Amino acid sequence: MAKLTSREEDYSKWYNELVVKADLAENSGVRGCMVIKPYGYAIWEKMQAQLDKMFKETGHQNAYFPLFVPKHMFEAEETNAEGFAKECAVVTHYRLKSNPDEPGKLMVDPDAKLEEELVVRPTSEAIIWSTYRNWIQSYRDLPILINQWANVVRWEMRTRLFLRTAEFLWQEGHTAHATKQEAIDETVQMVNVYADFAENYMKMPVVKGVKSESERFAGAEDTYCIEALMQDGKALQAGTSHFLGQNFAKAFDVKYATSEGTQEYVWATSWGVSTRLMGALIMTHSDDKGLVLPSTLAPIQVVIVPIYFNDEQKALVDEKSEAIVKSLKEKGISVKYDNDDKQKPGWKFAEYELKGVPVRIGVGPRDLEKGQVEVARRDNLTKEFVSLESLEEAIPALLSEIDANIYNKAKSYRDSHITEVNDWDEFQKLLEEKGGFLSAHWDGTMETEAKIQELTKATIRCIPLDAKQEEGKCVYTGKPSTQRVLFAKAY
Amino acid sequence: MAKLTSREEDYSKWYNELVVKADLAENSGVRGCMVIKPYGYAIWEKMQAQLDKMFKETGHQNAYFPLFVPKHMFEAEETNAEGFAKECAVVTHYRLKSNPDEPGKLMVDPDAKLEEELVVRPTSEAIIWSTYRNWIQSYRDLPILINQWANVVRWEMRTRLFLRTAEFLWQEGHTAHATKQEAIDETVQMVNVYADFAENYMKMPVVKGVKSESERFAGAEDTYCIEALMQDGKALQAGTSHFLGQNFAKAFDVKYATSEGTQEYVWATSWGVSTRLMGALIMTHSDDKGLVLPSTLAPIQVVIVPIYFNDEQKALVDEKSEAIVKSLKEKGISVKYDNDDKQKPGWKFAEYELKGVPVRIGVGPRDLEKGQVEVARRDNLTKEFVSLESLEEAIPALLSEIDANIYNKAKSYRDSHITEVNDWDEFQKLLEEKGGFLSAHWDGTMETEAKIQELTKATIRCIPLDAKQEEGKCVYTGKPSTQRVLFAKAY
Repeated sequence: MAKLTSREEDYSKWYNELVVKADLAENSGVRGCMVIKPYGYAIWEKMQAQLDKMFKETGHQNAYFPLFVPKHMFEAEETNAEGFAKECAVVTHYRLKSNPDEPGKLMVDPDAKLEEELVVRPTSEAIIWSTYRNWIQSYRDLPILINQWANVVRWEMRTRLFLRTAEFLWQEGHTAHATKQEAIDETVQMVNVYADFAENYMKMPVVKGVKSESERFAGAEDTYCIEALMQDGKALQAGTSHFLGQNFAKAFDVKYATSEGTQEYVWATSWGVSTRLMGALIMTHSDDKGLVLPSTLAPIQVVIVPIYFNDEQKALVDEKSEAIVKSLKEKGISVKYDNDDKQKPGWKFAEYELKGVPVRIGVGPRDLEKGQVEVARRDNLTKEFVSLESLEEAIPALLSEIDANIYNKAKSYRDSHITEVNDWDEFQKLLEEKGGFLSAHWDGTMETEAKIQELTKATIRCIPLDAKQEEGKCVYTGKPSTQRVLFAKAY
Repeated sequence: MAKLTSREEDYSKWYNELVVKADLAENSGVRGCMVIKPYGYAIWEKMQAQLDKMFKETGHQNAYFPLFVPKHMFEAEETNAEGFAKECAVVTHYRLKSNPDEPGKLMVDPDAKLEEELVVRPTSEAIIWSTYRNWIQSYRDLPILINQWANVVRWEMRTRLFLRTAEFLWQEGHTAHATKQEAIDETVQMVNVYADFAENYMKMPVVKGVKSESERFAGAEDTYCIEALMQDGKALQAGTSHFLGQNFAKAFDVKYATSEGTQEYVWATSWGVSTRLMGALIMTHSDDKGLVLPSTLAPIQVVIVPIYFNDEQKALVDEKSEAIVKSLKEKGISVKYDNDDKQKPGWKFAEYELKGVPVRIGVGPRDLEKGQVEVARRDNLTKEFVSLESLEEAIPALLSEIDANIYNKAKSYRDSHITEVNDWDEFQKLLEEKGGFLSAHWDGTMETEAKIQELTKATIRCIPLDAKQEEGKCVYTGKPSTQRVLFAKAY
């Protein structure tokens, strides 16, 4: 197995190689679309299961809405339509026919042109609010708290596995409320759910904040987000939760009768995370040997590699290994016993390092004689001997320790890369030399934001929710400002 | 709540009304596409969870492949392409732009025409086998056992909720094998998994069989299926498993090196079930009062409806009901306590009958004085009093009894509607007057099959796997035949 390009040598190349070599995903024969391979999909399934549980615990139900959005529906909310029209896949025909000029080939049948074009959903506000219109008559029908797991398509020109693909998988919550405050509360609740998931399951520290106007979702009044920091000092938006005001209710004429009998427009939110989280997970923890996964999302938490040189040893090692498998499974740990004898132990060690399995147990005859096995941690690549009797207790504790360690490591990197800066030269210098989040004052105008981006490629990632009020001067224009915002170059 | 049309009056109308009134699904604003509502989706999620478990237990892993199939890939396997070209959604453009003639409206941007059209997947053999080509070099790479949960689109002209929709949700297994026998074994294994799921989780009896050539999947060498019988005497194909031979391997040039070093084409299978199963479930068990669900797939297995006339009674009823909820939840039963005081008990009774909740417990002060509650079964609409002490034991037993009862009821209906017939006049008469499966001899030709369909609308549903060899004469042509096949009108 050829070694990975190191992060230092070429971070971007390291990422691309890692995704492919660890069997997570690959580019497909369809421009911009990826194939998510079984090992990558198994991680995504674990993410889905946990998020789905958290959505249900906060009162949401799943449903499914159509893939296609008829053009008249798509264009109803103008800001939203404008935001997505430039990069959408459009279905115009419903049949192919034999091509008379090329035997065996097909062509679009011009007689099968749709009366109205269908947009492949880039997001589902339009189709869902056209449906909610029929579901909502009175305040008794509210709130509606629905989530959908689906594929969406955005015709991105420059794509990268997981981070930006033409088709991606996501969940999108779409809720309807009687009052503005209730909708805002929902928006905030869901950004908190995302932060909880990122920190406690992905072991990835995030900053919760609000987007500036120019970074807002098309059609939203406010976009809340969680922002993470990758190991190359670039930020990554990991989830967003939008307060949509009454924009979609007005576009689709969705009103409800209040308990007093008046008619009011309904208030809306939407929120989503996608397979992009896979990219965030990979880039937050992994190293030059491969993936590093938290036990909370690892498809295999523990792998057992047997070591033997003859049949007698094999019998003993098999017996002991299978006993370990059994005892760990009873503890709810997912264990793989890799007794494939076509590969050598050394090859397996490298393979499971590449795949990010948190703990590897080596079981060999000499250690067994001493009543012990060798336990290797993926996170810091250390090994220790653990007695067979204490293994059942030691492994769950070790998994927790690994999870805590990779979170703390990512957090200390992230924390050391949030730099307060008050001077424009320093701002540019830090961005080039160190990267990370620059916490700076900003005069609040879109013009300044655009100018800074033009000069440095840094964007405002968010106005942190916990930003304190503080008198200051815009780092670029020197105009007055009352709070710091976070700038960074971003994925 | 207006009553449902009865099955006898108009079976088709009964079905359509039931799907909508029980909040399972509804037609959307997109031609032929449905919205699956939360209650319907919750049933589908239970189906998915069980099937997914069964796929994993038989060694399969999930993955995800692109939604789009480029035209050149789509047309590579000619039989398959021909089968699906007539009814596929085609993406031709990747952008909309402002329509200069109609302010606020959009139009397809003629400058954003794709170089090659993309077909929205009607099934994924083409895209998957174009991918497997890169995954398979030697016998060591085989078998590949992959499943995908996805949406697919087939441009059906006449659609019905769940039974036939332009977009539907399904799973599609796609496996690759070194030998013909191994692929056939996989095909048979998966039709057995489907039959197991249908009978033990949907409580729906099915016939396992093989399709005749004209009913085969486009591109398959053999199509295995499970066929169920609905209450109106029409059959419904509930799942299919295809032995694809080397057709896709040849179309996409997928060869492997054998252990002897020769190059061979790979053998393939594919198999799928879809949201159509929802239609099958509904039509197999439900009655004129609404849905009837087995406890194995019911989102709510037990509902508790409190009955009280004053606050003092309410306090007592609440306390006892909550104790019941707790004790049943501890048994792993999903219970809903419906203490919404905006609706009367009578309304709730009708509502949960409509929704098919298997068991309803009425908790009222007079019964509580006697230490009992009223337990109503949805399947046969009977009620009995059960003492509070025995409830915790009685409810799980009752759920099993209900499941057994609805299975047996469906099976006795189905069994009494498989009729051996040897005479053409009788064949036609039975089909009109009784419906169901007609077990008859057939001369094995596509011509006879087509003629019978033309005259009666009946098709060969399958050649049952357990069909015994028996000398006979074709029911239509009188030519010799060696086994009976099942004919029926079908959904």
